[in-house]
Amino acid sequence: MTSSTSHNDTILITGGTGFAGSHLVDLLLEMGHKNIHVTSYGTETGHVGKLLPSSQLHPLDLTDFEKTKQLLASIRPTQIYQLAALAGVGSSFSQIEQVIAINTKIQLSILTAATDICPKARILSIGTALEYQPKETALKETDQLGPVNPYGVSKVTQEMLAYSYHKQHNLDIVFSRSFNHFGERQAPGFVIADFSKQITQLSKSNNGSKEILVGNLEAHRDLTYVKDIARAYVLLMNQGEKGEVYNVGSGVTYSVKEILQKLINLRGQEIKIVVDQQRFRPIDVPIVLADNSKLSQLGWQPKVDINSALEQTLNYYQNN
Amino acid sequence: MTSSTSHNDTILITGGTGFAGSHLVDLLLEMGHKNIHVTSYGTETGHVGKLLPSSQLHPLDLTDFEKTKQLLASIRPTQIYQLAALAGVGSSFSQIEQVIAINTKIQLSILTAATDICPKARILSIGTALEYQPKETALKETDQLGPVNPYGVSKVTQEMLAYSYHKQHNLDIVFSRSFNHFGERQAPGFVIADFSKQITQLSKSNNGSKEILVGNLEAHRDLTYVKDIARAYVLLMNQGEKGEVYNVGSGVTYSVKEILQKLINLRGQEIKIVVDQQRFRPIDVPIVLADNSKLSQLGWQPKVDINSALEQTLNYYQNN
Repeated sequence: MTSSTSHNDTILITGGTGFAGSHLVDLLLEMGHKNIHVTSYGTETGHVGKLLPSSQLHPLDLTDFEKTKQLLASIRPTQIYQLAALAGVGSSFSQIEQVIAINTKIQLSILTAATDICPKARILSIGTALEYQPKETALKETDQLGPVNPYGVSKVTQEMLAYSYHKQHNLDIVFSRSFNHFGERQAPGFVIADFSKQITQLSKSNNGSKEILVGNLEAHRDLTYVKDIARAYVLLMNQGEKGEVYNVGSGVTYSVKEILQKLINLRGQEIKIVVDQQRFRPIDVPIVLADNSKLSQLGWQPKVDINSALEQTLNYYQNN
Repeated sequence: MTSSTSHNDTILITGGTGFAGSHLVDLLLEMGHKNIHVTSYGTETGHVGKLLPSSQLHPLDLTDFEKTKQLLASIRPTQIYQLAALAGVGSSFSQIEQVIAINTKIQLSILTAATDICPKARILSIGTALEYQPKETALKETDQLGPVNPYGVSKVTQEMLAYSYHKQHNLDIVFSRSFNHFGERQAPGFVIADFSKQITQLSKSNNGSKEILVGNLEAHRDLTYVKDIARAYVLLMNQGEKGEVYNVGSGVTYSVKEILQKLINLRGQEIKIVVDQQRFRPIDVPIVLADNSKLSQLGWQPKVDINSALEQTLNYYQNN
C-alpha cells in the first residue's frame, strides 16, 4: 500500500498531537519517515512530544493566517494531513457559532497558506461520518449530507471549503469521512474510552459491589481501531484520487452493549451495568455504518481484530 | 396552488427588501395577505418601502441574536421566508471568511430565535444551485454538493445548519436550491441586468456606433423570471414537505449569447457585440440546469415566457 510513499516527503500533520494524529506519527515513524512536523494547539504535546525533536513540534493557533503561512514557508511540506478541528459539540448558541467559525478559519488558513506556499502539496482533509444524513443502512460517499449537530455542520463546511479550493486553485486534495474510532490516548467522553476507564478503575478497587454507569446501549456504531484509521490515512495520502471522498470505517457495526460486554469479559470481573439517563444524548442515531468499498478498492482493510484492539485500549487505561 | 394558504398567517420575509424578496412581497399582497413583515439591512427599503406600512418594515442586522429574537417575539410569525444572506462572492481571504461567518450568523440567529419564540412556524430556507458540484446534465436534489466558490460554501453551511435545527429541534423547515433568476430590480453585476442596462442606455444615446461589452457568451444557464421564482417560494411555503429540498428553476437552459440576441431583437437596434476578457470569471461552469421534477410535482411551472419576461426586464431598466 505504500509503494508510492517517498521517505523524502516533508510531512505536516496539523492537529498532530491529538488522538488520531499521535497514532499517525507512530505509523509514519515505523515506516521510516523522518521529516514529520506537527502542529499543536498550545504547548502540550503529550505522546508525540516524546517522539519528535522540538524543531518538528510547532505550537500554533491555526486560525492565525499569517503564522500558518510562516510555518508552511519554513518547512515547505509535500504532504499535509489536515486533522485540526475544534471537536467540542456544544449546545449553547455561542458554542455553535464558535465551532463553525473556528473550524472555518482553521481550514481556510491552511488552504490559503498551501495555495501561496506549496500549491502542489498533497493534502488529506479529514471529515466525519457525522456529515451524513443518518440512515440505518451502510452509508456511501454519494449519500446525502445532513448533519444533526453543529460539529457535523462545521465539518461539512471544512470539506466544502477544501473542495472549492481544489476546484478553484487546483489544490491536490483527498477527502476522508471517518467513522468512530477508538484506542489508546483517546480523550474522555468517548464511549470506549469511558468504559475502559471505569472498568480499569473498578478492577483496581477492592470494594464489594462493582457498578458501571452507561448511556444508550442500543446504539450500533462502526468502530475502528485507531491504528487501522492511521493506516487508511497514509493510504489515502499516497493513493487516494484527487478530489475524491473516501469513507474510513470498518464496515461492521457493534452495539454499545456488545462492546461493553467484550470489555467486561476481557477483565473477567463481575460488574453490574447501571443505565444512567443523564448519559443519553438529546439526539442519538440508532445505527452508523460505513460502506467502505471505495477505500477497500485501494487495498485497505482493518488489520487488528476488535477483541485485541479493545484489550490494548484497556491496557492503556490500566497503566495511565 | 394556494389552497392551504391562510390569510391569517403572519409572514416574515428576512431580506424582504432585496431582489427576490420584493417580488415575493408583490405576490403576497396580490394574494390578499396583509400581515407581511420584512427585515432590511439598513434603512433603504426601496420598492417594498412603498408597499408596506412602516410598522411592517424592520431595519435589522440579523447577525444580532438578541434583536432578531426581540423582533420575532414582537410579531410572532407563522411563516418565515429566510432570504437573507450576504451575496458578495469576494476573492480575498478576509472576504471568504466574512461571507461564511456572516451567513452562518444570520442563519443561526433566525433558527435560534424561531426555536425559542415560534417553534411551530413554517420556515423556507433559500439555497442555491451553486451548492452543487457542477455537471453538464440536469442537477437533481440528490446530486453531490461541492460549491466552487465561497458564497456557495456559505450557502451549504446555511442549509446544513437549518437541517440540523430541523432534526434537533423539530423545526418545520423546507429548503430551496434556487437557480439563476432575473427581472425588474435586480442589482447590477448579474448578466441580464447588465445587458438590459447597456441596451437601454444605447437606445437613449444618439451616437453612431453602438457597442455592448460582454463576457463569456457560451455559458448555458437555467434562467427563471423572478415572479415565477416568487410563486415557487409561496408554493413551497404552503405545500413543500418538511425537511425536503426542492430545486427551483425552469428546467431549460439558454446560452448567454441567445439571451443577449433576444434582448437586442426586442429593441430592434443594430448593436455590435464586443467580448471583453475582463468580464470572464476566474472559474466558470459551462452549463447549469435544474431537474425541477420534484417542484413540478407540487404543481409549479414557469408562467411567464422568456421573451415577455425579458421585455419586462428591459422596460424596467428603460424607466429606472
